[in-house]
Amino acid sequence: MQQLNHQRKLTMNKRPTLADIKEAHQRIRPHIHKTPVVTCNVLNEITGANLFFKCENFQKVGAFKFRGACNTVFSLAEKEANRGVVTHSSGNHAAALALAARKRGITARIVMPSNAPPVKIEAVKHYGGIITFCEPTLASRETTAAKVIEQTGATMIHPFNDHRIIAGQGTAALELMEQVTDLDYVLAPVGGGGLLSGTAITAKALKSRIKVIGCEPKHADDAYRSIKAGRIIPSDNPNTIADGLKTSLGDKTFPIIRELVDDIILVTEEQIITAMRLIFERMKIIVEPSSAVAFAVLLTQNLNVAGKKVGIIISGGNVDFSRFFEGFGDN
Amino acid sequence: MQQLNHQRKLTMNKRPTLADIKEAHQRIRPHIHKTPVVTCNVLNEITGANLFFKCENFQKVGAFKFRGACNTVFSLAEKEANRGVVTHSSGNHAAALALAARKRGITARIVMPSNAPPVKIEAVKHYGGIITFCEPTLASRETTAAKVIEQTGATMIHPFNDHRIIAGQGTAALELMEQVTDLDYVLAPVGGGGLLSGTAITAKALKSRIKVIGCEPKHADDAYRSIKAGRIIPSDNPNTIADGLKTSLGDKTFPIIRELVDDIILVTEEQIITAMRLIFERMKIIVEPSSAVAFAVLLTQNLNVAGKKVGIIISGGNVDFSRFFEGFGDN
Repeated sequence: MQQLNHQRKLTMNKRPTLADIKEAHQRIRPHIHKTPVVTCNVLNEITGANLFFKCENFQKVGAFKFRGACNTVFSLAEKEANRGVVTHSSGNHAAALALAARKRGITARIVMPSNAPPVKIEAVKHYGGIITFCEPTLASRETTAAKVIEQTGATMIHPFNDHRIIAGQGTAALELMEQVTDLDYVLAPVGGGGLLSGTAITAKALKSRIKVIGCEPKHADDAYRSIKAGRIIPSDNPNTIADGLKTSLGDKTFPIIRELVDDIILVTEEQIITAMRLIFERMKIIVEPSSAVAFAVLLTQNLNVAGKKVGIIISGGNVDFSRFFEGFGDN
Repeated sequence: MQQLNHQRKLTMNKRPTLADIKEAHQRIRPHIHKTPVVTCNVLNEITGANLFFKCENFQKVGAFKFRGACNTVFSLAEKEANRGVVTHSSGNHAAALALAARKRGITARIVMPSNAPPVKIEAVKHYGGIITFCEPTLASRETTAAKVIEQTGATMIHPFNDHRIIAGQGTAALELMEQVTDLDYVLAPVGGGGLLSGTAITAKALKSRIKVIGCEPKHADDAYRSIKAGRIIPSDNPNTIADGLKTSLGDKTFPIIRELVDDIILVTEEQIITAMRLIFERMKIIVEPSSAVAFAVLLTQNLNVAGKKVGIIISGGNVDFSRFFEGFGDN
């Protein structure tokens, strides 16, 4: 195991291949859910395509993020792992890293802004993560994380700009393409690009003619603009309900997406809400706005999928229902 | 087929047996979804039991009601079927009957109160049902339905007090007990009692030692009171968020439940909301309040299921999300 981990560390300085993604799948398999692929006649009728939803909302911690976190944590050499891991995040990656670390029996330290939603703080605590609060600025997050690393020797685990993370996220598409053969399209949302780049590597390696589409909110369109410009152009304070997609591409995800992704298609906030509502009402499953972005692309008329087999990666299902249930039953 | 239908009509004047339920399953199989059984580690931890959720929220029209409607519509003799079917309902049964009729190629006429929610009216129209509006009183519903029958010769299909409906609803438990062997308990919500009585016949016939529990809101506790009194005591204008459970037992469902159901356990409105929220947040699936009632029973401490295998029938997933999505994205 030690040997394997060591090899892994070396190879993962390069962009992951399908072989790396298959190896990641072997590594994380005992810890993750093999999530189901769900279909829906009504949504097929609406779009004229055969849709296959890969339900990572049913993944542990409620999001695909657990795959990448798990792969990275279990890729660490023993000595490195024993010093623990650290990240700064207020989203699904924080909970995912906490659970992955607990499964390996090591410590996860999570730097979170003091104004993080209580439900996110609770999730990290629930999985045994140790929280260090900081000011709600990127500068404060980074200096606080640096301090934690200095004090503990913990390894920083970036939420997406890491080849081990990318390889882990690529395992969702690997399962999808085992579960449904001969897809014509795979759609995935794009924020930092971990999921999209892992998906693209897997999909193109398994079937070169498949089209891989990145799905992005108009209000956080850095991937769209970056691909067009041929260089990373980060979003400046993006504002979208798809809060998981506010992050911009990194130097590891950008080149993979530029090379392998066929198109980035943008959606409006209204289309995201319509898509999310259709999924709630027709499929009876809970998806977060970032996940609805991929299905929303099919409502734009900017992608002709008539008669095609389309895989859609539902990235997660962590939705805040506080207000819904507070008012529930009132008329 | 004509012959079979005729036999069916005769036999279905008596209480259905497991054989009838198996025959119903054969009859409706080409038309229904075989719904999945879902598990959730967190809810197992909370209850100390092994829970198996039979997801009729993923059934066609979003509820188990399609099973009974389908069985009844496809049990009708040709001549009878050709005159169409009718019901008065503003709930899941209306949509279920409309779709079942469309699948057989006959007409469904649905009497609905003029103040029925637009979403329910749309659902019936979507499945091709012909709506006749009436005043929002039981008297007006019944006289309007009688008029439709007089004019068209259509057959009235009661939502629960009909042995063919009961046999159809029993097919959910039949699938569940094929999907999960050796259950110790089966829990189902009780309104009019179609689902609970069908479930009880199936479960007890397949495994005599299984416990069948009816789950009912305190605010619509007619089944609880009726079983205690040994006679039907209808609810008087019940008020619960579990709107599918406001109806009272009928003379066909009551004797089955009295004989075969081990206990009726009541839950508060608060427990229903807590249960619904846990299912949303932990399982990432959408269930209607009536469905949450069955899981809510496990939060009452009135049923000791520690270490047991417990089947829970999730009856449906039709929730009105209008207000949720209207405010979505606002902070």
